[in-house]
Amino acid sequence: MRMLTFTHGPGDTTERLGVESDGLVLDLAVLADHAGVRLPHDLLSFVQAGPAALEAARSLLAADPAGRPAEAVHRIEAVSLRAPLRPGKIIGVGLNYIEHVEESSRSLDTDKDLPPRPVLFGKPATAVTGPGAPILHNADLTTQLDWECELAVVIGRPAHRVSEEEAYDHIFGFSIVNDISARDQRRSGQWFFSKGQDSYAPFGPVVVTRDAIPDPMSLDLSLRVNGVTKQKSNTRHMLFPIARLIADISSGMTLEPGDVIATGSPSGVGAGMVPPEFLRPGDTVEATVEGIGTLTNPVVDAR
Amino acid sequence: MRMLTFTHGPGDTTERLGVESDGLVLDLAVLADHAGVRLPHDLLSFVQAGPAALEAARSLLAADPAGRPAEAVHRIEAVSLRAPLRPGKIIGVGLNYIEHVEESSRSLDTDKDLPPRPVLFGKPATAVTGPGAPILHNADLTTQLDWECELAVVIGRPAHRVSEEEAYDHIFGFSIVNDISARDQRRSGQWFFSKGQDSYAPFGPVVVTRDAIPDPMSLDLSLRVNGVTKQKSNTRHMLFPIARLIADISSGMTLEPGDVIATGSPSGVGAGMVPPEFLRPGDTVEATVEGIGTLTNPVVDAR
Repeated sequence: MRMLTFTHGPGDTTERLGVESDGLVLDLAVLADHAGVRLPHDLLSFVQAGPAALEAARSLLAADPAGRPAEAVHRIEAVSLRAPLRPGKIIGVGLNYIEHVEESSRSLDTDKDLPPRPVLFGKPATAVTGPGAPILHNADLTTQLDWECELAVVIGRPAHRVSEEEAYDHIFGFSIVNDISARDQRRSGQWFFSKGQDSYAPFGPVVVTRDAIPDPMSLDLSLRVNGVTKQKSNTRHMLFPIARLIADISSGMTLEPGDVIATGSPSGVGAGMVPPEFLRPGDTVEATVEGIGTLTNPVVDAR
Repeated sequence: MRMLTFTHGPGDTTERLGVESDGLVLDLAVLADHAGVRLPHDLLSFVQAGPAALEAARSLLAADPAGRPAEAVHRIEAVSLRAPLRPGKIIGVGLNYIEHVEESSRSLDTDKDLPPRPVLFGKPATAVTGPGAPILHNADLTTQLDWECELAVVIGRPAHRVSEEEAYDHIFGFSIVNDISARDQRRSGQWFFSKGQDSYAPFGPVVVTRDAIPDPMSLDLSLRVNGVTKQKSNTRHMLFPIARLIADISSGMTLEPGDVIATGSPSGVGAGMVPPEFLRPGDTVEATVEGIGTLTNPVVDAR
C-alpha cells in the first residue's frame, strides 16, 4: 500500500490518512466509518496500531469500489500531500555510500577511510516538512545549503537489540528523506544544527508498506536540481545495509514505531562539486526513489 | 513551583502530575477535580497549556490546606518520581564551560580554542530516564561511560527567531540533565550515538518554574560518583549564556513547549581525569543544581 497524509479542498487544514491507488487517493477514515470498522485516523497512530490496522485497511481497499462513498475518493490532483507523519526521532546515517565518503573527505573534512561503524546523527521532528513545502533558505545563516537524496526506513514495531535477521520484521515501510544541510553550520564538527534546522527534512511523498518493496537494497535513487541530475545511484551501494543499520542502532537506542532512519546519501552532493554548488531561493529539488516516487520541494528565501 | 511526575503505591504505573511543597507531594489532578477546575493531568500538556494552567495551579496551592482531600497529599517518601516529561527534542550544548573546553581538547579530540558559536547536538527522547532509574552500562558497547552534570532549560512557549532580550519569556522552568556519554561510541566524530542511547539522559527530579529561580546564571552545580565530588562549578561560567543559546538555536530551529536544552557541563568529566575514570555497574551518580535538587541514578549492568 502507498500510504499518505493529505488535506483536501481550499482552506481545509485537517490532515487525513489516505492510500494512493490507481491514481486516486482513498480516505481511509471515511472508508472505515462507512464500513463500521475502527481504524486510526492518522498515519503515526496507524503504524503504532500494528498488523491489525494494516489488515483492516487492506480489507477496506479490497472491497468493491462501487460501494465506496463519493467523499472517500479523490483525484490525486485534488489533494495536498503533507509529511506522512511526525517521527519521534529521525536518525541519519552519514558516509553510507562509498563514493560519497570519498567526495566528503575532499570537501567536508571527513575521514577518507571507510567508517568501521555506521556514522549516526540526529535530526529533530521540527525539521520535517512535506512534499511541495518550502526548504527554507536563510542567507543570514548559510551560503552552503545542500541536498542529499536518501531512502527512508519507517519503523513499525519497537526495536531493542534486534538481530540483522529479525530487522525487517520491525520495518513498517519506506519513503524518501531529502537530508538538507547548511554545510557552514557545522559546530565543532557536529552536524546537528547543520542538518536539523526547520524544513531540513523534507519527507514523503508517501510511505510504501514493506510488502510492496520486494528488495529495498536494490532501488535506484536520484536527485535533480532545476531538472539537472546531481545524484544517481542505487541502494545496493550502501556501505551498511538496512538490516545492519537497524541492528546497530537498536543495540543501544530503542527504535519506536514511526521513527525514521535516513539511510545515507550517494555521491553528488553540492559540496562535492568542483566548484561547489549550493541551493538558492528559486531552486526546485526533486528526490526520487524507485518504487516510492518523487519528493519535490522549492527553495525559498526565509529571511 | 516545584513540579514533578510521580507514581504512588506499589504496582501503580499511572503517572501523575504533582507539586512538591513543604516536603509533601500534592496531586494536582486530584486538587483540580476536587475544586471543579480543569487542568492537564501530565506535565507536558500542562506546559503546553501555558500561563492559564500555571495560574490555575497556583490558585489551587494557595487555597486552605485544610480543605485538601486526603488522596491529594502524599509524603514525598511515599511516591516514586519519574522523568518530569518526555521532551519533543533535547538539544545538548557541548564545550560550554571554559575549563571543560580545555580538558576535552586533551582527552576527547576537540579543538582547544573556545568555540565561536554554541556547539549543538541532539539526544532523542528515548534516552530520557527518571530520578532513581538505572543508567544502563553495556560492556559490549562501551568501556568509557561518562557523566556530565548540566542545568536543563525547559521551554514553555514556542520559540522561533527570538532575541536574547525575549528569550526568558519562552522558558517554562529549569531542571537537571545528566548528559551521559559512551565516549568510545563517537562515530566519525559525531556524538549522537555516544550520547543518545537509552538511559543516557537522566532528567529531573523536578522542574522548577522560572519565577522560582531568580538568576539561573548564578547557580552552583556539582556531581558526585559514589559520594566523591567530580564536578563543581557555577552556571555563571557558561561560555554562551542561556539567553544566547535560545536566540542561537531558535534562529534556525523552532523550540517547542517541553523541549529541553541541556546547557553544557563544567570540567571534571571522567574522560578528563588523569588517568581517566569511567562509570561501572554498581556506581551511583548524583547531579546537583542549586535551587533544583539532586538527580541520583545507579549504574547497572545491562548486558
